[in-house]
Amino acid sequence: MTENDQKNYERTVLFACKQFEVVRCRWTEGSTSPLHGHAWSQCHVLIEEGTFENRIETGFKVETSRLSVGQVISTPVAARHEIKCLSPTGSSVHVYVPKIDPVTAQGQFLGQALNSEVLQLQEGSTTFPELESLLSRIRATSVPAHSPFFMNQLFSGITPEALMADSFLAETKATAATSEAGPSFAQIESEVIEKLGALIGWESGSRDGITVPGGSAANFMAIHCARQKRFPEFKTRGNYGRPLRVFVSKAAHYSFKKACVALGLGSEAVVEIGVDEQDRMWVPELERAIQETIRRDEIPLLVAATAGTTVAGAFDPSDLLADVCERYGCWLHVDGAWGGPVLFSQKHRALLKGIERADSMTFDAHKLLGASLTSSFFLCRHMGLLYDANDVSGGEYLFHDSKSAPDRGKMSWQCGRKHDAFSFWLNWKSNGSRALGDFVDRKMELREKSVEWILAQPNLELLGEPHFLNLMVRVRSRDSLVLREELRKDNIAMVNYSKDKNGTFLRLILAHPDLELTHIQKILNAAQGVET
Amino acid sequence: MTENDQKNYERTVLFACKQFEVVRCRWTEGSTSPLHGHAWSQCHVLIEEGTFENRIETGFKVETSRLSVGQVISTPVAARHEIKCLSPTGSSVHVYVPKIDPVTAQGQFLGQALNSEVLQLQEGSTTFPELESLLSRIRATSVPAHSPFFMNQLFSGITPEALMADSFLAETKATAATSEAGPSFAQIESEVIEKLGALIGWESGSRDGITVPGGSAANFMAIHCARQKRFPEFKTRGNYGRPLRVFVSKAAHYSFKKACVALGLGSEAVVEIGVDEQDRMWVPELERAIQETIRRDEIPLLVAATAGTTVAGAFDPSDLLADVCERYGCWLHVDGAWGGPVLFSQKHRALLKGIERADSMTFDAHKLLGASLTSSFFLCRHMGLLYDANDVSGGEYLFHDSKSAPDRGKMSWQCGRKHDAFSFWLNWKSNGSRALGDFVDRKMELREKSVEWILAQPNLELLGEPHFLNLMVRVRSRDSLVLREELRKDNIAMVNYSKDKNGTFLRLILAHPDLELTHIQKILNAAQGVET
Repeated sequence: MTENDQKNYERTVLFACKQFEVVRCRWTEGSTSPLHGHAWSQCHVLIEEGTFENRIETGFKVETSRLSVGQVISTPVAARHEIKCLSPTGSSVHVYVPKIDPVTAQGQFLGQALNSEVLQLQEGSTTFPELESLLSRIRATSVPAHSPFFMNQLFSGITPEALMADSFLAETKATAATSEAGPSFAQIESEVIEKLGALIGWESGSRDGITVPGGSAANFMAIHCARQKRFPEFKTRGNYGRPLRVFVSKAAHYSFKKACVALGLGSEAVVEIGVDEQDRMWVPELERAIQETIRRDEIPLLVAATAGTTVAGAFDPSDLLADVCERYGCWLHVDGAWGGPVLFSQKHRALLKGIERADSMTFDAHKLLGASLTSSFFLCRHMGLLYDANDVSGGEYLFHDSKSAPDRGKMSWQCGRKHDAFSFWLNWKSNGSRALGDFVDRKMELREKSVEWILAQPNLELLGEPHFLNLMVRVRSRDSLVLREELRKDNIAMVNYSKDKNGTFLRLILAHPDLELTHIQKILNAAQGVET
Repeated sequence: MTENDQKNYERTVLFACKQFEVVRCRWTEGSTSPLHGHAWSQCHVLIEEGTFENRIETGFKVETSRLSVGQVISTPVAARHEIKCLSPTGSSVHVYVPKIDPVTAQGQFLGQALNSEVLQLQEGSTTFPELESLLSRIRATSVPAHSPFFMNQLFSGITPEALMADSFLAETKATAATSEAGPSFAQIESEVIEKLGALIGWESGSRDGITVPGGSAANFMAIHCARQKRFPEFKTRGNYGRPLRVFVSKAAHYSFKKACVALGLGSEAVVEIGVDEQDRMWVPELERAIQETIRRDEIPLLVAATAGTTVAGAFDPSDLLADVCERYGCWLHVDGAWGGPVLFSQKHRALLKGIERADSMTFDAHKLLGASLTSSFFLCRHMGLLYDANDVSGGEYLFHDSKSAPDRGKMSWQCGRKHDAFSFWLNWKSNGSRALGDFVDRKMELREKSVEWILAQPNLELLGEPHFLNLMVRVRSRDSLVLREELRKDNIAMVNYSKDKNGTFLRLILAHPDLELTHIQKILNAAQGVET
């Protein structure tokens, strides 16, 4: 867009109130709106006269369309758009709904709970306008996960597709238990799982999987399936007998321990293996630990490689772990809750080298890929095993499936189940595999630029060599925990922190679709006390 | 509304297109719109002149408000409203967004999957208008869970509050793992759990709980917590040792078996107890089975009373089971996934007599009470036990909680977790406890009327004495499975079926907020082949 294009257009408000605004715009050739979002408003534009070009941006993709008289474009909530008049003159009618107060939508990094009395449940009713006002107050005091400055979790930003998907699911309320309750939804779950299995490189006919409520549940399911495969008789009689052992790195997610507790294996079943200076599982120690286990007459059941650790973003060497697993007959699971999306990147998928040899994988689409909370997949290279591990009798009142439309609920621990695959499917469908890979590549490029800038700041110390989209940074002579709270209190950002032997450090997560170097600079300059 | 009020009002369409419609209405005193819904459209009305009364109905509550110049009312999506002019003349502007084609919104009881090619994921992108059209096609071929004629699941209908809650959660994307990520949300989860515990009758300070992904997961958690309480040492070393046993009725949900498999106890751990002629657990048989277990040197760990079985809606006698549990030191769990809402009814809560003696309860708000899929609670009478059972080390990068704002994620198997309590909280807040109880009472009255009508139909056979909101009906000399498929194919209804020793029968579930006797009559008349 050149300066010449930035001509004015005339804007007349026809109706304006809190819940909607109707505006008419008169345009001349080349006049262009700025690229703008509408906070959480829907924006619909009807062309009354002339020809226009509309451009929608989401951080994952750019979409342009040409519009003539009678056509309407709707900007999906949470996307930005820009509209330009191509004809000598033009006229358009714009409807905005709803107009959330921009201050309310902003939220606060130091979120606060509303007064507990306000949140209390009572005997009598509350009117819808009162509820709306209550929701506004909750929003205004909540942490803005939609902001690029939100880096506390392994996700950031709200995608238009996730909003569309969640509304759609709420309106349809189809349970994922049976195929007949939502035939397209069931196919969609299968399609995502099939395509993810293909991306991993598993052979057609072997790849299987199920959505689970979060990455923790996927890790849980991995141990359960490994147990089923090795000791099918435990399904009826329980795991009474020799103790089973599960090997993870010291940097692995705590969910493996939770899983072993619930699975009746006990937290002692988890053997934590040391890591190298890059936070990757130390393979010789793994092999020694497995041998030690065997000597003690325990069963080395499963090795979990972490693909993207929560703190450092490290990738355990899947290929080397696969060698070890083959040697000792262990199940290889890859926890790709955070790092799994590198599957889409031609450039970076070497981080997952050997993944096709894994028996199973955890994949969270609600983290880097912007799906709804939660969109988690347990993927498995053994067709039918999930069914063997989880199907029991007694569901005849519900399951009436056929071979052509199997009931996926039989493979799950859940009965009524939300279609967690849907928001990821819509994201993937909208952007396409290539754009998801490009997205990973762009974030990795941003990391390179960020590292370069951080290394040039004398007051900043970068910890470790970044593997993925985690940056571990310390401001020299400052306590990172105090810094984190200051950043929240000043409403600048919400980053997380962790500690190593030298003390605490900040963890920045590069996940937001619109994140740029300037955001990183703003956060770390504030942390350094540099005025910008 | 009398006939006199039914005066006309003048309606002028100002702008109309697929995505929005702006209409101006001119009114005279007493003129009234019909009570109408807007399918899935939002409807906003701005008063330009005059005074109006607006009435909103949801099936749970009725809300009226008075409006004067400059005020706006918004009818929540999925609610109905009626508007009446109180002044000599009036003028209003109405904005409808979006206008979903009513045919599309209707869906089909014999749902169909779209052609798999259309659902396939691809390399390139799909535009937003194409996605919208794809969603429309999915909706048009999906099962309409919003219809009163949808009785296939133990839920029916879409509440405005659930739609509001799901959009709000998608926009905020706050994880339930930690308090700092969503302080109000964390308080809301605690508030719902605290109030449910109080309704059960558990003492203040003892009641605890957590949201879980579905009723199956709550039953799972019950066995896990019972095991933790009795054998805390299993947490580290696993349940190696004497076999544990779990007692349920033959009519109980299959999830207990799934749970025992996953928990490492094996499906043999589930001992199924016979039922009386009313489908309630036969207490003398339970006691004999427990004694037999003890004789075999097995551990009778838990007895699960079902409050509302899936097929017959039977309530096991919680008070008698509590006696047995006390005698043998067993944990008493009540699976109230379906029948739990009678807690709100003064009239019917005797069905749950003895519930206050239970150690834990499963409560699903997404079934009868119209919350989103899923809104499930595991409720527990032992404060701190969930934490003891599930907290492990290794989450220091995430959990930074304080005593005043504890991180509820430590009590869960999930890490990133959707705020499943939210939609139920909004429903409860909107309607109030009294209205939820009234709702249960109204559905029970409808059951009485339905039973009376069915008994008067010579071709219909009512099976069993209804306990709750399940009606088991057989059309004499017709195969119920065939009938069910006919009702779906003719797009009349979707009911479920089951079988007893005499063959198959239809199961009707009375859960929809707007359900009336006429709906039941229409379904069963069609099934009987009676023209209406």
